[in-house]
Amino acid sequence: MMKRSILMVYTGDGKGKTTAAFGSVYRALGRRWKVGIVQFVKGKWVTGEHMHSKKIEAVDHYLMGEGFTWESKDLEIDKAAAREAWAKALHLIQSGEHKLVVLDEFTYPMTFGWIDEKEVIPHLLARPPHVNVVITGRDASPALIEAADLVSEMRCIKHPFEKGLPALVGIDF
Amino acid sequence: MMKRSILMVYTGDGKGKTTAAFGSVYRALGRRWKVGIVQFVKGKWVTGEHMHSKKIEAVDHYLMGEGFTWESKDLEIDKAAAREAWAKALHLIQSGEHKLVVLDEFTYPMTFGWIDEKEVIPHLLARPPHVNVVITGRDASPALIEAADLVSEMRCIKHPFEKGLPALVGIDF
Repeated sequence: MMKRSILMVYTGDGKGKTTAAFGSVYRALGRRWKVGIVQFVKGKWVTGEHMHSKKIEAVDHYLMGEGFTWESKDLEIDKAAAREAWAKALHLIQSGEHKLVVLDEFTYPMTFGWIDEKEVIPHLLARPPHVNVVITGRDASPALIEAADLVSEMRCIKHPFEKGLPALVGIDF
Repeated sequence: MMKRSILMVYTGDGKGKTTAAFGSVYRALGRRWKVGIVQFVKGKWVTGEHMHSKKIEAVDHYLMGEGFTWESKDLEIDKAAAREAWAKALHLIQSGEHKLVVLDEFTYPMTFGWIDEKEVIPHLLARPPHVNVVITGRDASPALIEAADLVSEMRCIKHPFEKGLPALVGIDF
């Protein structure tokens, strides 16, 4: 039987990766899908996307990360948090309850070597056939790109941070 | 006074432009913003994003386009529809009721010369200072890129359409 779902990757250095993942959520909700979301980095942030998810019954949104590494005091804690997030993500995917599962900023723990991509990719490919997966984050690896059905690279042409402007509530988070 | 809003453009040939625009909507809703959306092309489609918008009171979502030009029987009708959509968009922006206004696939009527970019850009720049605008579509012009605060280009690295797979309900629309 043909797989009826796809594995999508939004990568690159430009704005729009996490944003596109939440656009996928918006669209999926219109089709009455259940959606699971695991955020691997922004676990301690207050974000507009999380605030909205809390209002929607069909969305299970887990904030699991410990923040950016350069703000970290103990990388072992970050590493453990990333592994716990992957365990949660794998459970969501395998349970087959959600037709869309978003793994936001999932490339980072793989790039850092905290989660072994060689373990992850076979699980992604062996997911229940109706479960679509969206992965975001910079520097998607060649193996992840190979495994994915759809890959878009967000290239930064222009960004207000370059002009020294701060992140904006409602726009950036 | 510094402008507290930004003009964003999602362009390029990859998937994620419209999707990112709706991710911006998702995030903005978490911040309790009102959102206005004008779709310039997919006016006759049933889309997941529109189905979801209909359920949300804070979203005013207008489907204005006549579809893709290659499916058109009479380009004059398309042209008139595009102009009507721009009139609606301009009204939304100027009224200042929405902190986010999405102009989805707005680059196309400008590229086709149906709406004069020289008329559009000054209006975008003169918008009320709290109104953020997101524009999507391929081939954003140099003038639009110049006017924008943030521009991301979605580059297609891999797309299932290349393998002949059809668009998927809930994923593509």
